[in-house]
Amino acid sequence: MRYALGVEYDGSGFQGWQGLGPSGPATVQAALEHALSSVADQAITVTCAGRTDAGVHAECQVVHFDSTADRDPRAWTLGVSGRLPPTVCAHWCVPVAQAFNARFSARARRYRYRILNRPVRPALYRHTTTWERRPLDADAMHRAAQALLGENDFSAFRTVHCQSPHARRNLQEIVVRRTGDAVEVEIQANAFLHHMVRNIVGSLLEIGAGARAEGWMAQLLAGRDRTLAGPTAPPQGLVFLRPLYPSEWGLPESVTLRG
Amino acid sequence: MRYALGVEYDGSGFQGWQGLGPSGPATVQAALEHALSSVADQAITVTCAGRTDAGVHAECQVVHFDSTADRDPRAWTLGVSGRLPPTVCAHWCVPVAQAFNARFSARARRYRYRILNRPVRPALYRHTTTWERRPLDADAMHRAAQALLGENDFSAFRTVHCQSPHARRNLQEIVVRRTGDAVEVEIQANAFLHHMVRNIVGSLLEIGAGARAEGWMAQLLAGRDRTLAGPTAPPQGLVFLRPLYPSEWGLPESVTLRG
Repeated sequence: MRYALGVEYDGSGFQGWQGLGPSGPATVQAALEHALSSVADQAITVTCAGRTDAGVHAECQVVHFDSTADRDPRAWTLGVSGRLPPTVCAHWCVPVAQAFNARFSARARRYRYRILNRPVRPALYRHTTTWERRPLDADAMHRAAQALLGENDFSAFRTVHCQSPHARRNLQEIVVRRTGDAVEVEIQANAFLHHMVRNIVGSLLEIGAGARAEGWMAQLLAGRDRTLAGPTAPPQGLVFLRPLYPSEWGLPESVTLRG
Repeated sequence: MRYALGVEYDGSGFQGWQGLGPSGPATVQAALEHALSSVADQAITVTCAGRTDAGVHAECQVVHFDSTADRDPRAWTLGVSGRLPPTVCAHWCVPVAQAFNARFSARARRYRYRILNRPVRPALYRHTTTWERRPLDADAMHRAAQALLGENDFSAFRTVHCQSPHARRNLQEIVVRRTGDAVEVEIQANAFLHHMVRNIVGSLLEIGAGARAEGWMAQLLAGRDRTLAGPTAPPQGLVFLRPLYPSEWGLPESVTLRG
């Protein structure tokens, strides 16, 4: 039987989603596979919707796994959560068709990047916000970001370590808004290249701070040259909100495309 | 010269605001006095607007202190923040009249209590939310809470360790609202008794879960008997948002009463 599982984690203490296995550094995948294998009493491996880097969080990552163990969805959810460290938990578990694949069935991924924009570093929310002391013009960042919408070659925002065969992605939505001293970037695409969100945010910060003009995003995109774009924004401000799947898979509403 | 200072902290690793001094457990007050004394190069003690318990956070606590050291407000803010642990920082510092007292000049205090209401424990936001797995009726909690408004004797919601000479407080506002699986209680009073917010929330949780009727809050208040009320809600969901002062003191807008 194949199952889909919704997973939440605080990425602060992990070396990222994926790693070197039991003898390597702590990864979310290793923690999850360890807990699932314990519940199933058999070795289980998982495939995720979107790998996250060290320090990046997830409100709802989705994985699929196969198991012959006979457990109901509630037993998987509570059993796995009970065996995970305090920084990881499972929200829900549903049986899915064998053709479902957490990575390849996803039609979109949604991320949020949170920036605390004030003279003094964050204390209370320091694990989930990036600090920018230069005053940011969030409206200028929002306008500049709209140049990225649609199907484009995102080579300008791709790390050299990215292993994807091509750099074309469909950016479906990007919104920058300010609430008090917090500036949030919410972004959705069919898929993302390695470091793509953090590289886009790093360039938007240069525009927000007035170091670059609003038209710079369009220039960078057209130039396809990573060395010209802004620095990679730090990981702790980034949260993988959720992947989105067609309704035919019967997943919870929170990860299902509308319409 | 007397100064007022705005302070933010993550209460997770502290034994509360106040403690036993340098040889006792880690307290926010001790960390702050250590940093201020280092900047001033003389011993400094602080008085706060509202003491918080172990595990309780503050978005903006306010303290006052006296110093003969000649530093401008920016030097105090940045110097102190630079000497504090990552879990504490100072937002702002302003010189104030000698008659100002962070505790006695405050006309109101505002707190927020955040509850994650779902079957599975929190992971990503576990330090700033309390977990309640019983489904909560936030509207019923809100209606029940309105019985507390006004000048009342809050003995029913006061810990036996409370040292206040009387239990009369003026509760100015209490709002309970749900956003997705989060239920938030925001509450403002002229002042609070020890454990008062957490005891009110503990009783509201019983009403929200359907274990008690909506009229129970009014009964508890009238009965003035702590032993009849609900359990004290855990500390980690509680954040001291800010005290509020009359405009005459010239403090930042965020901690100044309107009108």
